[in-house]
Amino acid sequence: MAEAQGIRSLLVIGGARSGKSRYAQMAAERSGKKPVLIATGEAKDAEMAARIAAHQAERGSHWCTIEAPLALGDALKAAAAPSTIVLVDCLTLWLSNLMLAGGDAAAEGQHLADVIATLAGPVIFVSNEVGSGIVPDNILARRFQDAQGRLNQTIAAACDSVVLVAAGLPLTLKPSAHSASIL
Amino acid sequence: MAEAQGIRSLLVIGGARSGKSRYAQMAAERSGKKPVLIATGEAKDAEMAARIAAHQAERGSHWCTIEAPLALGDALKAAAAPSTIVLVDCLTLWLSNLMLAGGDAAAEGQHLADVIATLAGPVIFVSNEVGSGIVPDNILARRFQDAQGRLNQTIAAACDSVVLVAAGLPLTLKPSAHSASIL
Amino acid sequence: MAEAQGIRSLLVIGGARSGKSRYAQMAAERSGKKPVLIATGEAKDAEMAARIAAHQAERGSHWCTIEAPLALGDALKAAAAPSTIVLVDCLTLWLSNLMLAGGDAAAEGQHLADVIATLAGPVIFVSNEVGSGIVPDNILARRFQDAQGRLNQTIAAACDSVVLVAAGLPLTLKPSAHSASIL
Repeated sequence: MAEAQGIRSLLVIGGARSGKSRYAQMAAERSGKKPVLIATGEAKDAEMAARIAAHQAERGSHWCTIEAPLALGDALKAAAAPSTIVLVDCLTLWLSNLMLAGGDAAAEGQHLADVIATLAGPVIFVSNEVGSGIVPDNILARRFQDAQGRLNQTIAAACDSVVLVAAGLPLTLKPSAHSASIL
Repeated sequence: MAEAQGIRSLLVIGGARSGKSRYAQMAAERSGKKPVLIATGEAKDAEMAARIAAHQAERGSHWCTIEAPLALGDALKAAAAPSTIVLVDCLTLWLSNLMLAGGDAAAEGQHLADVIATLAGPVIFVSNEVGSGIVPDNILARRFQDAQGRLNQTIAAACDSVVLVAAGLPLTLKPSAHSASIL
Repeated sequence: MAEAQGIRSLLVIGGARSGKSRYAQMAAERSGKKPVLIATGEAKDAEMAARIAAHQAERGSHWCTIEAPLALGDALKAAAAPSTIVLVDCLTLWLSNLMLAGGDAAAEGQHLADVIATLAGPVIFVSNEVGSGIVPDNILARRFQDAQGRLNQTIAAACDSVVLVAAGLPLTLKPSAHSASIL
């Protein structure tokens, strides 16, 4: 019945080590659906490999994992299904990969937002808040900060519900009428 | 009737590209009053000129614009009127101009806060949250971070209502009994 | 009666100059109990000395102050009592001292969290949000950002209530059934 009402979508934003990934994982696990992770990070160095391994250990082995450093929209369309819940962790690494590859962040962000409404099952996105510190000296860092802020706005507008996590605790930015059914 | 109850004032804070300017513009446009922008930014380089042009394009041509990089209190007193709504975008650039000019940020911030209660019409301020990242190495950046935090507190205390914007979505920090009449 | 129900605990987080210390001080003063400050900062340079002096001037002379740059759990156990309210300001400086001394931030954070439930009186912690800006270039800064985020999560989980302060105004992250009795 809830399924017949269409796709459910949640964006979880927060700072570094705010507990946003864990919150999103718990939301996925509480859904009772089969959890699928779309991982956007690539283990390019030891520090990143350690972060990815720590996240995997937190999730446990009942998760199915798909890697999609760039082709996120396609991976999402392929993975979404009524019986599964897809967790995209995270949009920040995807955006970083996209910008390093010379992609158009605004266009790709809008394309991703457009995909959300077409999915056959629920999706949860995790994304970083990176715009609330001192504006960086570095122009590339400023461009990334702008692109991340814009992407968060674009995905937030397309999602049914949006939550800000701080110190492991959620603040609702956009309440969903259907949040009980997804969470 | 609502007018007779005195000045209405709103402070909108948020990180870089959080959607705070757009939220403030929509609040101004929904008021039904004639919108006046007090712009504090100066186009000193190409990057800043591009940011200013992008904001102008978002606003549309029915806005009247006044530039006030330093004399913000005077510009505000001159522009405020019962039939208009004044948008100050943004306090962060004003503070930056003030500190570069050797002004006393604490005293000027308190002076601006004192002006709010004397205005003949409603005002909306936009200001950046810059204090939620790693404390910067650079002492000038730390001074700016402190001055911005203090200014946000001072103006928040003087305004009827305060909103925090993240991912384009508002969280009410200080609800106004009169918020319906301003927005 | 409220006392018999056990310890009350509050975590106040916020960015630099968000008003978090002042909010925590007011909460302590409104409790009607004797306020005790556990200060974790050491005046190692002129800038830090000025920050500490400014905080002391804000608090007034009826506060009793204990310095605990490292042995925070012990100081907390010694200071907590039914007739007093202990304010720890702040966890960020304690974490910085701990990491500079080569301590295990995760283990010490969990130990501190375990102490909270054993205290003989109420406690308020102040801590910085440092994870919502651009990820720093510097690996030590990234480690600190991660450790601070993790510590905030650990202490938030152990406290009865958690508040996020921005522009001097509180947002409740974790409401306490007993918040009326502590504040």
